[in-house]
Amino acid sequence: MLTHLLPVELEKSYRLLNHGPTVLVSAQDHEHTDVMTAAWACALEFSPAKVTVVLDKSTKTREIIENSGYFALQVPTLKQLKMVYALGMISLKDAPEKLRHSGAELFKFPHSNIPAVAGCAAWILCELISEPHNQQTHDLFIGKVIGAYADERIFRDGHWHYQDAADEWKSLHHVAGGHFYTIGNAVSIHTDQE
Amino acid sequence: MLTHLLPVELEKSYRLLNHGPTVLVSAQDHEHTDVMTAAWACALEFSPAKVTVVLDKSTKTREIIENSGYFALQVPTLKQLKMVYALGMISLKDAPEKLRHSGAELFKFPHSNIPAVAGCAAWILCELISEPHNQQTHDLFIGKVIGAYADERIFRDGHWHYQDAADEWKSLHHVAGGHFYTIGNAVSIHTDQE
Repeated sequence: MLTHLLPVELEKSYRLLNHGPTVLVSAQDHEHTDVMTAAWACALEFSPAKVTVVLDKSTKTREIIENSGYFALQVPTLKQLKMVYALGMISLKDAPEKLRHSGAELFKFPHSNIPAVAGCAAWILCELISEPHNQQTHDLFIGKVIGAYADERIFRDGHWHYQDAADEWKSLHHVAGGHFYTIGNAVSIHTDQE
Repeated sequence: MLTHLLPVELEKSYRLLNHGPTVLVSAQDHEHTDVMTAAWACALEFSPAKVTVVLDKSTKTREIIENSGYFALQVPTLKQLKMVYALGMISLKDAPEKLRHSGAELFKFPHSNIPAVAGCAAWILCELISEPHNQQTHDLFIGKVIGAYADERIFRDGHWHYQDAADEWKSLHHVAGGHFYTIGNAVSIHTDQE
């Protein structure tokens, strides 16, 4: 399961989210394990690395994160499109078999108890920074990044390599309903500053 | 200047950001007008529509927004790549001629005093919801959406139409340095729920 997975420096973990992909949010507490799809996730700080994610009060994943204090954001791929859509449409509250029916296969990174979804392109493990005002008023959750990993076949040396990989690796960018865009072509400004 | 620009329902304005594009943040106060590039902008709420954007303390745009209480997020296009990069690299504090040198041409929507950048694909006009803790601790600014517009050639009927338009219209998704990805292909789950 961990073949091809390499750690990403925490200070560069923002690059896993910088292009604005739709993510999967995973968490577990003593009773439940859940994964949900979220389009509203964003980097918040370079160092110490932090992220934000908006979690509606109706979601089971939110309850689990409030209980456990930990979650992972992961960047799914075009190959996982059906799973990504199912994980966003079905609630664990209505369908206890949600994860099995969605086809989500879970694993854990060494020294981590946060469930991670297999087959994604990258993973950001987070400890919740509890902020009751943001959570209650804005459904906004802030995580301190405590681990980051990527599949070296698509992210290595601090950069995505979408242009060198098969389309099935591309990130998904949700618009509405069942409609997504994949990430597209690399374009660069030529500069001496890199 | 306003040819092809149509209002977007505020409740659907999240769709302008949902695919995670790099944005331009614009604002003016009694003394200054500035535009900066930001990769860390995100939808926060459907209704009343709200957005977040992370603005470093070093930026002039942030000072202006704190003074004026208003800002716009806009979605630039591949055609504007050089301008987008320049607006993110140069500070108005160092270069008073930043906007002219970057090639940013400004205009205003009817009944709005917020400067907007011409040639973008979409615009979200915001009133700052003052939250000193988020602003000071996290550099996180929350805006209530008070107006939204899009160029009908690329966004209409509540949806992006990247697949029907020339590449120069594509949104930019910043990775690091001068490196970006454009948005890619449309992919859909076939469902009866739309």
